[in-house]
Amino acid sequence: MHALILGAGGMIGRRLTKALVASGAVGGALLDALTLIDVVQPDAPAGFAGNVRTEAADLTAPGAADAAIAGRPGLVFHLAAVVSGEAEANLELGYRVNLDGTRLLLDAIRRAHLADGYRPTVVFTSSLAVFGPPLPPVIGDDWIVTPASSYGTQKAMGELLVADYSRRGFLDGIALRLPTICVRPGKPNKAASGFFSGIIREPLAGQPAILPVPETVRHWFASPSAAIGFLLHAAGLDLARLGLRRALTLPGVSATVAEEIEALRKVGGDKAVALIRREPDPAVARIIETWPEAFATERALDLGFTADASFDAIVAEHVAEFHAGT
Amino acid sequence: MHALILGAGGMIGRRLTKALVASGAVGGALLDALTLIDVVQPDAPAGFAGNVRTEAADLTAPGAADAAIAGRPGLVFHLAAVVSGEAEANLELGYRVNLDGTRLLLDAIRRAHLADGYRPTVVFTSSLAVFGPPLPPVIGDDWIVTPASSYGTQKAMGELLVADYSRRGFLDGIALRLPTICVRPGKPNKAASGFFSGIIREPLAGQPAILPVPETVRHWFASPSAAIGFLLHAAGLDLARLGLRRALTLPGVSATVAEEIEALRKVGGDKAVALIRREPDPAVARIIETWPEAFATERALDLGFTADASFDAIVAEHVAEFHAGT
Repeated sequence: MHALILGAGGMIGRRLTKALVASGAVGGALLDALTLIDVVQPDAPAGFAGNVRTEAADLTAPGAADAAIAGRPGLVFHLAAVVSGEAEANLELGYRVNLDGTRLLLDAIRRAHLADGYRPTVVFTSSLAVFGPPLPPVIGDDWIVTPASSYGTQKAMGELLVADYSRRGFLDGIALRLPTICVRPGKPNKAASGFFSGIIREPLAGQPAILPVPETVRHWFASPSAAIGFLLHAAGLDLARLGLRRALTLPGVSATVAEEIEALRKVGGDKAVALIRREPDPAVARIIETWPEAFATERALDLGFTADASFDAIVAEHVAEFHAGT
Repeated sequence: MHALILGAGGMIGRRLTKALVASGAVGGALLDALTLIDVVQPDAPAGFAGNVRTEAADLTAPGAADAAIAGRPGLVFHLAAVVSGEAEANLELGYRVNLDGTRLLLDAIRRAHLADGYRPTVVFTSSLAVFGPPLPPVIGDDWIVTPASSYGTQKAMGELLVADYSRRGFLDGIALRLPTICVRPGKPNKAASGFFSGIIREPLAGQPAILPVPETVRHWFASPSAAIGFLLHAAGLDLARLGLRRALTLPGVSATVAEEIEALRKVGGDKAVALIRREPDPAVARIIETWPEAFATERALDLGFTADASFDAIVAEHVAEFHAGT
């Protein structure tokens, strides 16, 4: 199997690459080639015996999508995207990368299908941002998509394209609405959701963290390893089971900020919790208010996708990776 | 008020033009200018005192969208589309006209907004084709959009764009999911839905009509005048009431083919009903099976949209227009 990762340089892309190389297989097939593409050339993974091509490319440049699939990868992970805040700040950039980029990729695959019967599996990362208010406390699989951001709009449009191009037989696609990744590794960023990870990550590293919303705020989480597990599980599924509905909301852990803090306390004690500074930010609170709190993801569970066991388990994974032995 | 109609040459466009001219006003404002655009130059309406511009233009040609809104119409009806069968048969044409055409229009408006504050009301005709199986017997306003055709996909993408561009303040938009128009005037066509109108229209004109599906088939209908009423009502609404959800499923009459036939019998007698030839067509039946049967359109009803009173009333309207005095 030849796997292509678009957006291979991001947090998810790098972890996915590592997981693929570590397993040496995907979807029951031996992994013998990897193509890694991002706007900045991704690092070649260590310890991979197969062919590797790493490349810096802008998927929206003329010919770039055709070039990306020139080796006819049987499996395409399309993770490349401009993030939520950037897509809101720069409308043209967001539509170009998130909508046009996806469409150019799918159209390159369509033309290849018509030319030589190419029909890859396409795993596209969508987002909970496709959902917008008013939302029920628990959102079912039949709930309407009404994005409250341009990013969510672009992801919802990508979902529709993946479904239509799958229905027409050009590819076999699935769109995964990943839960909010927590504990997200790395530096604090300016994303409105950043504090969900920050209030765990920074105190465990002995650093202060700002909490801009009340402790009653509830949201839907997956650990980085659960997210990678979703991508790998999707790659091995019989996607015909999805029927017309190629977009799937994934199982997660629904937790309040108060529950996050208690999970932190179990690991880091009161000392860690004391590093959380409550600085209410009405602007952030207003954004977060529009976000989903919990889902009933029966379709994904039926298809074998599994969530983290608990928020404690999410924190334990982070501790094992970044604070082992301390 | 200056109104622009894109797709002014079609059945809905011509009737909308006539209704606007007859009323001389729209949304409570005097109508003083009309711009009518279609791929074939539309006829100028008779008896309109204001300025009229009629033009043949392809909205996807370079500069065409900017030219269409050059006069800064305060009200834009975007009805232009490649129909369902054509969008399925010719993927590139469907995406170009139905998706790119809509996006080019909305982007031209966005640029005009940024240049001079232009912010028109945009009434976009969407379709029940945004819904696909599995569907419940009665579809509520919160039900997920999962198109079973490229046409439905393109309309769903247009709905998302209208919502996002409205949210960002470039325009004030609404997407109307019109019921299936019945009795559709004109010649029989090859649309899968054609028989719904054909089994009324042809027998009333003394012509045979083919019924390819069982009489138990149920669907969602609006008369031509109800459809025009929806467009005019939308043009006068305070669209801020829609919030993020700029797409609206419209009220209709849910009727079975058997109920259609009884409505025909009341007007045309057994002689008319005898002109219906039952020729089961499994291919048509399979398509129709995936279509919605009925909706609970609470949002639209709350906003003052009203359906035809009954299928009898739908037939009576057709008789009054085409068979008055016979």
